[in-house]
Amino acid sequence: MKALVYEGPGRRSWKDVPDPVIQQPTDVLVRMIATTICGTDLHILHGDVPEVAPGRVLGHEGIGEITSVGTAVTELAVGDRVILSCVSACGRCANCRSGLPSHCSNPEGMPGIGWIFGYMIDGTQAEQVRVPFAENSVYKLPAGMTEAEGILLSDILPTGFEIGVQYGRVHPGDVVAVVGSGPVGLAAVMTARLYGPSKIVAVDLDPARLARAREFGATATVDSRDPDWKAQVLALTDGAGVDVAIEAVGLPVTFAMAVELVRPGGRVANVGVHGKPVELALNELWIRNITISMGLVNTNTLGMLMKLVATHVLPVDGFVTHTFDFDQVAEAYDVFEHAAEHDALKVLIHRT
Amino acid sequence: MKALVYEGPGRRSWKDVPDPVIQQPTDVLVRMIATTICGTDLHILHGDVPEVAPGRVLGHEGIGEITSVGTAVTELAVGDRVILSCVSACGRCANCRSGLPSHCSNPEGMPGIGWIFGYMIDGTQAEQVRVPFAENSVYKLPAGMTEAEGILLSDILPTGFEIGVQYGRVHPGDVVAVVGSGPVGLAAVMTARLYGPSKIVAVDLDPARLARAREFGATATVDSRDPDWKAQVLALTDGAGVDVAIEAVGLPVTFAMAVELVRPGGRVANVGVHGKPVELALNELWIRNITISMGLVNTNTLGMLMKLVATHVLPVDGFVTHTFDFDQVAEAYDVFEHAAEHDALKVLIHRT
Amino acid sequence: MKALVYEGPGRRSWKDVPDPVIQQPTDVLVRMIATTICGTDLHILHGDVPEVAPGRVLGHEGIGEITSVGTAVTELAVGDRVILSCVSACGRCANCRSGLPSHCSNPEGMPGIGWIFGYMIDGTQAEQVRVPFAENSVYKLPAGMTEAEGILLSDILPTGFEIGVQYGRVHPGDVVAVVGSGPVGLAAVMTARLYGPSKIVAVDLDPARLARAREFGATATVDSRDPDWKAQVLALTDGAGVDVAIEAVGLPVTFAMAVELVRPGGRVANVGVHGKPVELALNELWIRNITISMGLVNTNTLGMLMKLVATHVLPVDGFVTHTFDFDQVAEAYDVFEHAAEHDALKVLIHRT
Amino acid sequence: MKALVYEGPGRRSWKDVPDPVIQQPTDVLVRMIATTICGTDLHILHGDVPEVAPGRVLGHEGIGEITSVGTAVTELAVGDRVILSCVSACGRCANCRSGLPSHCSNPEGMPGIGWIFGYMIDGTQAEQVRVPFAENSVYKLPAGMTEAEGILLSDILPTGFEIGVQYGRVHPGDVVAVVGSGPVGLAAVMTARLYGPSKIVAVDLDPARLARAREFGATATVDSRDPDWKAQVLALTDGAGVDVAIEAVGLPVTFAMAVELVRPGGRVANVGVHGKPVELALNELWIRNITISMGLVNTNTLGMLMKLVATHVLPVDGFVTHTFDFDQVAEAYDVFEHAAEHDALKVLIHRT
Repeated sequence: MKALVYEGPGRRSWKDVPDPVIQQPTDVLVRMIATTICGTDLHILHGDVPEVAPGRVLGHEGIGEITSVGTAVTELAVGDRVILSCVSACGRCANCRSGLPSHCSNPEGMPGIGWIFGYMIDGTQAEQVRVPFAENSVYKLPAGMTEAEGILLSDILPTGFEIGVQYGRVHPGDVVAVVGSGPVGLAAVMTARLYGPSKIVAVDLDPARLARAREFGATATVDSRDPDWKAQVLALTDGAGVDVAIEAVGLPVTFAMAVELVRPGGRVANVGVHGKPVELALNELWIRNITISMGLVNTNTLGMLMKLVATHVLPVDGFVTHTFDFDQVAEAYDVFEHAAEHDALKVLIHRT
Repeated sequence: MKALVYEGPGRRSWKDVPDPVIQQPTDVLVRMIATTICGTDLHILHGDVPEVAPGRVLGHEGIGEITSVGTAVTELAVGDRVILSCVSACGRCANCRSGLPSHCSNPEGMPGIGWIFGYMIDGTQAEQVRVPFAENSVYKLPAGMTEAEGILLSDILPTGFEIGVQYGRVHPGDVVAVVGSGPVGLAAVMTARLYGPSKIVAVDLDPARLARAREFGATATVDSRDPDWKAQVLALTDGAGVDVAIEAVGLPVTFAMAVELVRPGGRVANVGVHGKPVELALNELWIRNITISMGLVNTNTLGMLMKLVATHVLPVDGFVTHTFDFDQVAEAYDVFEHAAEHDALKVLIHRT
Repeated sequence: MKALVYEGPGRRSWKDVPDPVIQQPTDVLVRMIATTICGTDLHILHGDVPEVAPGRVLGHEGIGEITSVGTAVTELAVGDRVILSCVSACGRCANCRSGLPSHCSNPEGMPGIGWIFGYMIDGTQAEQVRVPFAENSVYKLPAGMTEAEGILLSDILPTGFEIGVQYGRVHPGDVVAVVGSGPVGLAAVMTARLYGPSKIVAVDLDPARLARAREFGATATVDSRDPDWKAQVLALTDGAGVDVAIEAVGLPVTFAMAVELVRPGGRVANVGVHGKPVELALNELWIRNITISMGLVNTNTLGMLMKLVATHVLPVDGFVTHTFDFDQVAEAYDVFEHAAEHDALKVLIHRT
Repeated sequence: MKALVYEGPGRRSWKDVPDPVIQQPTDVLVRMIATTICGTDLHILHGDVPEVAPGRVLGHEGIGEITSVGTAVTELAVGDRVILSCVSACGRCANCRSGLPSHCSNPEGMPGIGWIFGYMIDGTQAEQVRVPFAENSVYKLPAGMTEAEGILLSDILPTGFEIGVQYGRVHPGDVVAVVGSGPVGLAAVMTARLYGPSKIVAVDLDPARLARAREFGATATVDSRDPDWKAQVLALTDGAGVDVAIEAVGLPVTFAMAVELVRPGGRVANVGVHGKPVELALNELWIRNITISMGLVNTNTLGMLMKLVATHVLPVDGFVTHTFDFDQVAEAYDVFEHAAEHDALKVLIHRT
């Protein structure tokens, strides 16, 4: 089969590799229908994730059709069309059973992380994929759901919802600020509505992204290049700050912005992937009764979000901005790497 | 009356000041029976809290007897013996009504902090005290409760429980580490038992304090001067870390220890009062699904803890190590400032 | 002033009564702008509530303008326009402080129920009202909010939300059934959306009410006169039942319907006011892991819902179907008592 | 092998049956070390559970040693000593994944109930047992744990804790009443302490059981034959009722007692298995803000409780009162059926 292979820092190629095979009774094989690219794939490609060895097939998102099932698989069958979770959950370990499959201590020799596709095992930017622990890690695609909808459920919608909205404990009536209007920030903007906030304020430095944030459900936007950006946000509250501040960038400055915005008793939910430590002014914050959360998605809500996408409670049509064939994966990467230039959000790469 | 007056950095005196008077219909006046000293009093005395002007009567903990009630007070009467909460709750503002009286936006010209005794208004290290918002800020002392028990309910027991144990979301079966075995750390150790942990590990650098931690309910102790202190704690878990790490010191190094100890999915509850920012390694932590909390006590649980002290479910006899008369308040401060030397925890200062 | 006085079973009159006066320092007097009628008023009028003595002014909902404040009132002023909660909360008793003002054990000689207007003290269907515990029991009307919006916040919206939606623990993705599409059922339908359900199914025997339920947010409706009504509801689920069934009628048959509809692990939230006991088939239900809740509204969410009405997140325009002057209160009662005939929901009675 | 076979209403025999075999890749076979008898076994034996066909091996509790593993089993090995959960969890279905394995919709042709041992498939009162979904349904016995400790974890301790204490939402400081001091009532009494109640009141009509309840952790006992039993319980509260009332009998009268005892805002947790419907006085209760829960155990807390038994936080030595060999199973049933006469709680039946 063909697959996108990491060849070392900065190098990738769409090339022939051996077909995957069933290795465990709980595996299934999937013929990929569509995949997409995540910011993490870029980090790996840039060599920032040394655990990933050259030769690894990239990608951890996708939908596909089952072509083979292991002997212990009873609830899935050849021909089922499924969404692959970016997290592989054994379903048996203490972490999986306590709702933390992001830290699944699974038996495939992994370092206690449920995210293994395109990282510790071959990933989804390929014609075929072996899916371990399939019955706990894939979801049947509802009839009528499009590729462009299904692909969002592998990672980005659950990440924005679980790590942003749920960890941030959004409650009805809350004012929520989302710092960063890239794909995951927009996923948080859109899914925040599931807890009935009174206002969702998108903060970004790119007017085009802010315009899009409004389409995705933001009730107000603030340009962070404005010197009074903070005052603009506070003016949307009672003056004390927002109830929940979601960080969806991954930089010290945006993390600091989120902390600055939150009211006493509020929550800062970090979704961004950070490359550097941050300073936390505990000397000022210890008295403010705030909570700071962070984490890798568990995709525990994938099935639930799938229902809301299927019934269009969540109108996710705007996420996929560009579509490519598998053979155009290089071009897809180029567009995604220069997203601002192409006004790109998510790129869909699919079988033709 | 006599009171302990802050005279500027490093200077205090027990001297005559005017008697307090009822200022608002919701006030009561209290003749103090007993008070105590908190680490925060020392910070103020050292001039670290510039909001406190010379002339302020210090102290925010205490029990006393009501000598006068405002015209709006219906549930309290002259002669009632009461515990004073360190937090004055108006009971009407949005923060009070949402369970956050620590950030009461009350009408006494305060900066949105419920703690005002010995800070924004005259405090409890005095023969008499004016208590604002009395019906939301005092609790009737149960029959049979001693001074040494009641005094702990003003601040230290609720602080350890609310900010350490509840914010840390201790669950049955959890392994809890408490970094720091001073008074508030021991309050966390003792009250952690209210959520049925399997193990409570006290971490400190003072063997005498660790011995005391065992008396207060720690099931294991680790001397943080040992190079392998971390390994010792992890050996008490499944290897992945503790479920809850409570920081009860207030230094960057102890905060870092708490963060290091916590397992994926775990909680770090900061109770310590910090004087400096800390570094937070978000580059490593973003993926670990931990939560970091902090805050000023609300004393929402004061009444509940009072019941548990009264029924000896919480055996708090060991907290008060030294007792003084009001006239010996200078000596009490000396002992408390050199607590290690005197093997002191809480000092009781009372009317004779 | 004029007020609607209960004269004994079946008899009421709009007549002159003495003006109310401030009785406690925490009271305010309010000149009523608008009030409305609740099903409970009809029960009282029919003599079903023997605690209500003849001479009592009826009504527990309303908005008005403050004309006088007690000496302990600091946050409200003459001229403030306010929404009156149907629940009078002293804000000091253990129940109020634990979020249960519906069972406020307040000091006005009441039987431990926070609802006292038009029941234990004179109510709101009057030109003027004395409001006890005003600072914990009224909310300033936001600029721009109409009478027809504000009036809903006294009781019906918080009741549908707190006792139906929150006690029923609606979660994102849930299928919610609401049995009964009268005013309170519609309040539950509308506010259920604040927790992101995938489907809201209204069940009623009146097609006109079902049509209205769709306007208020129901995504499906089922006519309970159809023999296969239950199958119709289950067809909207995975077959196992709804996640949450809200009973908003108050009859044994509708309660039984709600219990029948709920899935294992689901919640039955009773909102209806019942006049008879019901049978609970514990012999079949003990194994089904369901929860049954019930209660009087606390109006803890009144302020929050007010924000959502003000920002039109909750579009409540459809609730008030008829408007009357105070002098037409008799006519208003006639319409409300024969609601189906008049296609009436809530009737607004206001000062002209 | 030998096993206890249900031969039709009132008839059982310890006799030779075919050895079990691995049927699914996720199965293990277990050589039983110990089992016990539950009240449900008696119901089945009396013919009250018509789904159970003659020929069925009884029993759903036990510990044993693994003798064979299916091809998909990776975390368990021959020789492992394990505790069997009474609930068989596939770990994959929506109910299992949402924490409700009690309603596992598993693929063994069962009616959507996780409890299948001794009911839909052959059970644990046998020399050998086939365990389906083994990796989600057994727990490795900790070193040093006795048979008499381990056997309690299959059902009774998790049932008392999950369905009584957790569903009843016991909080620190609560007053908890447990109606019925049989084995499951005592399990609730003992595990209630994990949430720090101020008082645990055992209510029963048998003084011997009440004496035992004190040994298991009840802080007070009330003989329900006393005409003023209710007043005695209320005297242990502030007069308004208990916070949590746990029903652990399964009769209309005891359910009514639990409902009578609970305070406004409180919770009734039904643990008893009922044979008849009950009357629920919704006409009085609708206004009381109580919650009524019920259900089959999920054993989600089995692993957690195992840690607390292993560390003796839960001192469960008193539960097993009688011990028998497998060959004495008939005698064990006789003792358990006449428990009061023999002062019996749990009977241990083990391999010799």
